[in-house]
Amino acid sequence: MIKIVAVGKIKEKALKTLIAEYQKRLSSYTKLLIIEVDDEMLIDDDMINKAIQVEGERILKQIKEREYVILLDLGGEMIDSVTLAKQIQELNTYGHSDITFIIGGSAGVSDKVKARADLKWQLSKLTFTHQHVRLLVLEQIYRAYKINNNETYHK
Amino acid sequence: MIKIVAVGKIKEKALKTLIAEYQKRLSSYTKLLIIEVDDEMLIDDDMINKAIQVEGERILKQIKEREYVILLDLGGEMIDSVTLAKQIQELNTYGHSDITFIIGGSAGVSDKVKARADLKWQLSKLTFTHQHVRLLVLEQIYRAYKINNNETYHK
Repeated sequence: MIKIVAVGKIKEKALKTLIAEYQKRLSSYTKLLIIEVDDEMLIDDDMINKAIQVEGERILKQIKEREYVILLDLGGEMIDSVTLAKQIQELNTYGHSDITFIIGGSAGVSDKVKARADLKWQLSKLTFTHQHVRLLVLEQIYRAYKINNNETYHK
Repeated sequence: MIKIVAVGKIKEKALKTLIAEYQKRLSSYTKLLIIEVDDEMLIDDDMINKAIQVEGERILKQIKEREYVILLDLGGEMIDSVTLAKQIQELNTYGHSDITFIIGGSAGVSDKVKARADLKWQLSKLTFTHQHVRLLVLEQIYRAYKINNNETYHK
């Protein structure tokens, strides 16, 4: 099973539609669960540390011990789509059937969450909105399953 | 002026909506023109080379000599959002007021198009759909203008 634990809700209706489309496509390949945990309001900079601690606890509450955790992290490793596909395949082969992706909030994630991650993954050197990150991660997981099933996937 | 020359149309309505939103937001900062040139049908692999030549001619027809051309290219340079912002600012400062981004089709672009590029830019090691690339590029340009205007831009 693929699980995505994400901080905050997707606000734009059009983005929700696109995300739902990849959820639907992925359902032919794997069980997929998206869990949204509440984000904290960030009024001033002093609140950031408190917010990421609170959000961090909410994230960790959703993760079981056996899950292989991939954290989306700006300090993480950059990998290409084929390598990601291979990693998912290898994890499945070696009994890690539960892979969980964590997408933090706009202020980042706590050290506790970082410590729980089995792999830290950086999508790009660019900063994307964390709303777009959810779409991109889903599309990459879908692409990975297409690659692993030797199916062509243009566009 | 920022110009985006892209091969093919955006098909998904939801993605069109998201792209239109960034077009609207960017209009407070710069003139923006998006030109879609027709893509060629790719029935088999033999047609790919022909297709990218034809698409290449269509792209180049839309570009004037004075324009500074940034080509989205998997073999290009990866830069972060702050560096992109600086580059856009410097180009404007040094008289390059017309910056053109080229987003090729699913089969890539011709050598002629590559030769015309002043800068080759790789968004990520990951392969994204070229439809998503348009959204990401627009969001990065918007982000660049926010950075250059010292405006905060969370999410």
